[in-house]
Amino acid sequence: MVNVQSIKDAPGLADGRLREADHPSSQVALFGPDQPLRLDCGVDLAPFQIAYQTYGTLNADRSNAILVCHALTGDQHVANIHPVTGKPGWWETLVGPGRALDTDRYFIICSNVIGGCLGSTGPSSTNPATGKPWGLDFPVITIPDMVRAQAMLIDRLGIGTLFCVVGGSMGGMQALQWSVAYPERVFSALAIACSTRHSAQNIAFHELGRQAVMADPDWRQGRYFEQGTHPHRGLGVARMAAHITYLSDAALHRKFGRRMQDRDEPTFSFDADFQVESYLRHQGSSFVERFDANSYLYLTRAMDYFDIAADHDGVLAEAFRGTDTRFCVVSFTSDWLFPTTESRAIVHALNAGGARVSFAEIETDRGHDAFLLDVPEFLDIAGGFLQSAAAARGLPANGA
Amino acid sequence: MVNVQSIKDAPGLADGRLREADHPSSQVALFGPDQPLRLDCGVDLAPFQIAYQTYGTLNADRSNAILVCHALTGDQHVANIHPVTGKPGWWETLVGPGRALDTDRYFIICSNVIGGCLGSTGPSSTNPATGKPWGLDFPVITIPDMVRAQAMLIDRLGIGTLFCVVGGSMGGMQALQWSVAYPERVFSALAIACSTRHSAQNIAFHELGRQAVMADPDWRQGRYFEQGTHPHRGLGVARMAAHITYLSDAALHRKFGRRMQDRDEPTFSFDADFQVESYLRHQGSSFVERFDANSYLYLTRAMDYFDIAADHDGVLAEAFRGTDTRFCVVSFTSDWLFPTTESRAIVHALNAGGARVSFAEIETDRGHDAFLLDVPEFLDIAGGFLQSAAAARGLPANGA
Repeated sequence: MVNVQSIKDAPGLADGRLREADHPSSQVALFGPDQPLRLDCGVDLAPFQIAYQTYGTLNADRSNAILVCHALTGDQHVANIHPVTGKPGWWETLVGPGRALDTDRYFIICSNVIGGCLGSTGPSSTNPATGKPWGLDFPVITIPDMVRAQAMLIDRLGIGTLFCVVGGSMGGMQALQWSVAYPERVFSALAIACSTRHSAQNIAFHELGRQAVMADPDWRQGRYFEQGTHPHRGLGVARMAAHITYLSDAALHRKFGRRMQDRDEPTFSFDADFQVESYLRHQGSSFVERFDANSYLYLTRAMDYFDIAADHDGVLAEAFRGTDTRFCVVSFTSDWLFPTTESRAIVHALNAGGARVSFAEIETDRGHDAFLLDVPEFLDIAGGFLQSAAAARGLPANGA
Repeated sequence: MVNVQSIKDAPGLADGRLREADHPSSQVALFGPDQPLRLDCGVDLAPFQIAYQTYGTLNADRSNAILVCHALTGDQHVANIHPVTGKPGWWETLVGPGRALDTDRYFIICSNVIGGCLGSTGPSSTNPATGKPWGLDFPVITIPDMVRAQAMLIDRLGIGTLFCVVGGSMGGMQALQWSVAYPERVFSALAIACSTRHSAQNIAFHELGRQAVMADPDWRQGRYFEQGTHPHRGLGVARMAAHITYLSDAALHRKFGRRMQDRDEPTFSFDADFQVESYLRHQGSSFVERFDANSYLYLTRAMDYFDIAADHDGVLAEAFRGTDTRFCVVSFTSDWLFPTTESRAIVHALNAGGARVSFAEIETDRGHDAFLLDVPEFLDIAGGFLQSAAAARGLPANGA
C-alpha cells in the first residue's frame, strides 16, 4: 500500500486549553450581571471576563496607554512567554524596551478578544447557566463587540483616552473600529495589513476553514470538551488553508521551492516528500495544541461580518468624518489576503473624511505574515509614527 | 444554540461512480498482461484500460487527430452529456461543429487519465489481483505516465502523429509533456493556463486538499468502497479549497461581493449568510457526487511531481531543443494558480530551445477557470492557431 502521512494527533492539551479559558495565566477583569456586554446580535452577555496583559507603566496623567489588538489566532501574550506553548510573545519584534512600542515609555495593554480561548469569555469558557463550556450556545460576536468589551476594560483601568490603538489583520480591524466607535478616546491609530470589510475571497477562505472544522466528527456539534474529543484534524486542515493565505507565492518559493524533505528522490507515495508539505502539516499540528476549534469558528465569523461602511450607508469616508485621531495605515506589497489596494481604500476614505493619515506600502515578498516578522522598514515606520504622535500628545521623550 | 450548516451528505452515488470505474459509458481500450504501462515509480501496470470519447471523423491519411487532455477533475466527456451528472460536456465552448476544435474538420480524442475515476484504470478500478478496488494499492502515477498511456491509446487507434495536443491546467501539463516525450508525434501543441512544474504554493494547496480527504474518518485509509462509506465531507472541503484557487479575487467580488443569500440582515449564526458561502458549499457537495476521493489524491500528487526541467538538469529550454512542434501558449491575467509569469517562462524556454511559439496573455478577471468559460478572445486565438497549423499541415479547409 502507498504510504500515507496525515496530520498528527495533538497531545492531550485540551485540559490546558480549557483551564486557560476560565483561569488564564493573565490578569482578569470580571464584569458581573450588572455590567453586561451588549452584543450586536441583541444578546446581553453577563457575567463575562476579559483576560489581559500589560507591559510598562501608566504615567500620572494616564496619557501613555497603548492598546494592542491581536489577530485571529493571536492572544494577549504579546511580549511574554506563552503559557501553553512556552514560546516567546507574538509581537516581540515591535513591543519591548527600546522597541517601536517602547515598554520603557508607554503602558501597553493587550486583551484576549471576546470569543477567544485564552481567558476572555468565549465558547470554551464555562457557561454559568449550565456549568459546561458554552460551545455553540455562545452568541455570535462581531468586531464591534470585541471593541466594546475592550472599552469596558479600558474604563476599568481608569483610562479615558488611549494614546494609540495598534493592530494587524483582525487587530487592524479592531483599531479602525475603535477610531470609528470611540473617536474621542483614540489619540492615534496604527492599522496594519487590514481592511474595513472582509472581501468575498476572505469570506470564502474562512468558510472553508469552518467547514473543515465542522466536517470533523470529533467536533460533535461543538460539544467536544464534554465528549472527550477534539476536532484536531479539521482544525489542522483549517489552519493549513489559512496559513497558505498568510504567505505569498514568492515567500513559499523562496523558503521551500520544490525542495524535498530529507530525501533526494520522490517516494511515489503520500508522504510529505516536499518541504512545503512538512511545513504545512507542522503548522496544522502545532496550532491545534494552542487554539480552540469553536473560537476559530466564532472569530472567523466576526471578521466576515465586519464592514464599517455598511453602518454608514456604504460611504466609508462618513465613518471617519470629523475625526481628530491621527492615523497610520501600513500595507505589504505581497499581502494577497489584505491587498494593499484595501489599505489605499482606507487612506482615501480617511482623506475624504478629513482625517490626518500617513500611509506606508512596504515592499516585501513575505506576504500577510510580514506584520509579525522582523521587517525593519515596517518597525521603523511604526516607531516613527508613535514618536511623532507622542510629541503631539506632549509625552516626555523618556517615559512616565 | 447557534445554527450550523455544513456540507450536505452526497446522495448514494458511490455505486454509479464505481460502475463507471470498471464499465464506463465510453469506448474502452484494453491492454493485456503483455502490454504493461511502465510507470515512473518502477511498477509495470498490467492489465489496464483507457476510457475515451471521440468526436468527428479520422481522415484517410490520419492527419487530423487532436488529443484533448483534461484537467485535474475533468474527464473524457468533453462534448457530450456526462453519464453521471447529466450535464453538458466540460469544453463545449471550444469543441463542437464550427467551434475552434471543429468536429466537422478534426477527429477529436479525449481519454480519461490513468489514475482517474471515469473508466481508465485508477484507484477505484477493480484490482484483478484481489477483485476489490485498488484503493491505495494503486501505484502513484505521474504526468509522464498519463501521457505514456495516451500514446498507447493513440497507437491502438493507428495514429502516428497527432495534429494537435490541447489542454488547460493539468491538461496543459500533459500537452507540454507530449511535446517533450514524443516531439515527432506532435505537430502542434496548445497549452493553456499551465506550467512546466508545480510551484510551492500549488503543492501547498494540493497537500491541503489531500489532508482534508485523509482527515475524514470515512476515508478509511482509502478502503471506503469496501466499507460502505465515502469521505464526502473531506473531499467536499478539498474541493472548496481548490475552487477558491480557480477563481480570482475580482471574479468572486463581481459574482458575490458581500451580498447575502436570501436575507437582508446577518443571522448571527454559522448559516451560509453570504452568497459566496452557499456557492462554495454547493461546489463541494456537487463535486463529491461525481469524483472519487482516492483519484483526487493520486491526480493532485501527479501534478505536484511534475517538473519538466528536472529531467534536463534544470534547464527547461533543453527539453524543447530542436523540436518541430508548433506551440501556442495561452495565459489569463487574473489566474493566480498558474500565473501568467509561468506561461512567459514556458515561452522563453521554447524560444531559447529554438521552437516556433505564439503566446497570448488574455486580459480577464475570471481567474484560472477562464479556460473553461466562454471567453471569446481565448476561443478566437485557439481557433486561429489551429487554422494556421492546419494550413501548415495541408489539411483541407473543410474536413476529411
